[in-house]
Amino acid sequence: MNEKKEVGEKAVDYVEEGMVVGLGTGSTVFYTISKLGNLVQQGLSIKGIPTSKQTEKLAIEVGIPLVSFHEINQIDVAIDGADEVSRDLDLIKGGGGALLREKIIAKAAKAFIVVADPHKMVDKLGSFPLPVEVVPFGFEMTMKYLQELGGSPQLRQKDGIPFRTDNGNYIFDCSFPEITSPEDLEKDLNLIPGVVDNGLFIGMADKVITLNGDKNISINVRK
Amino acid sequence: MNEKKEVGEKAVDYVEEGMVVGLGTGSTVFYTISKLGNLVQQGLSIKGIPTSKQTEKLAIEVGIPLVSFHEINQIDVAIDGADEVSRDLDLIKGGGGALLREKIIAKAAKAFIVVADPHKMVDKLGSFPLPVEVVPFGFEMTMKYLQELGGSPQLRQKDGIPFRTDNGNYIFDCSFPEITSPEDLEKDLNLIPGVVDNGLFIGMADKVITLNGDKNISINVRK
Repeated sequence: MNEKKEVGEKAVDYVEEGMVVGLGTGSTVFYTISKLGNLVQQGLSIKGIPTSKQTEKLAIEVGIPLVSFHEINQIDVAIDGADEVSRDLDLIKGGGGALLREKIIAKAAKAFIVVADPHKMVDKLGSFPLPVEVVPFGFEMTMKYLQELGGSPQLRQKDGIPFRTDNGNYIFDCSFPEITSPEDLEKDLNLIPGVVDNGLFIGMADKVITLNGDKNISINVRK
Repeated sequence: MNEKKEVGEKAVDYVEEGMVVGLGTGSTVFYTISKLGNLVQQGLSIKGIPTSKQTEKLAIEVGIPLVSFHEINQIDVAIDGADEVSRDLDLIKGGGGALLREKIIAKAAKAFIVVADPHKMVDKLGSFPLPVEVVPFGFEMTMKYLQELGGSPQLRQKDGIPFRTDNGNYIFDCSFPEITSPEDLEKDLNLIPGVVDNGLFIGMADKVITLNGDKNISINVRK
């Protein structure tokens, strides 16, 4: 059984004719996008707005017509994966490096649906190092401020050089011994000059699609 | 009398032999940098760290040796201008477009000194439209969120196209009818995905050098 495929494909139930759909990035939402591509081939008319260049490429391959922000008034639904999902449906995202565009699209969407295999479901956020997107200028200072907040930042590397986001920024993967208040941490991080945004998605997910202990689909709705 | 020159040159009093000096951007700190250049020619040994490409160019012209963040452990003093200075020494900055690098350097400095001609001194911040640096991706949505906070954002243009910061971002010049709590506004702005930073500098300035009613130098110290 492919758990990612199960939950990823389930999310297309929330996509209706004529919708503008925010398309997330990652290995689970990959199946959502592929399935949406099938449905488009069968006649479904939707428009996609991708959260990364990688997803843009995939959406074009599977035949989903794309739009950009200046062509639309709203996003009806955004579907994306997560690196961790708490019991309160708060998220850590950004393992794939697209956290900022993902957050912009999730916030802009009328409904934000998360697809997460059961391994992503946690009691409390923080085992997954929190991705923090920072401007390259002065990143050495930004690193110090992350340490002052209790974090252990590691500059993300790719092919031996610092990884760059689609926005041209760096990412620190920042472990915290525990994240007691995600809300406070999100504010504190965003007040650091040099921090563009961070992977905490607090109060944003409307529904989380996962599998329960019996491996059946489980849909958790924000209370 | 050149008021900008008076206050700008006064700031060199706070620069001592061997210091690492954050060099701001704008028409007042221009005089600080030029004067520092003179002192360097006369034997003063300092290192400068510029807040913009424009200032980097000026510093090289006047002969101030430059360093970047990875070469230093700390900044001893940063000197910069402001677009508005309140009675509490809170600032609006960013008219010149370098707000993010200016904030990174001001925060990193042990002392942050502001040079401001008397026209910049106000009872309350907000007559000057607040510059807000945003990522180009999804800026149309970011504009809506700025409006929801009560602002009237105007995308800054240069030569008929959107102005780009040294970090590759856009700037909204965002008028607010009044800024009742600069602290809250700064937090609210920085929590918007897509907002990189904003021109509010709250609790950061240690000293503000300006002229009093008699056109004498007046040095205001944070209480």
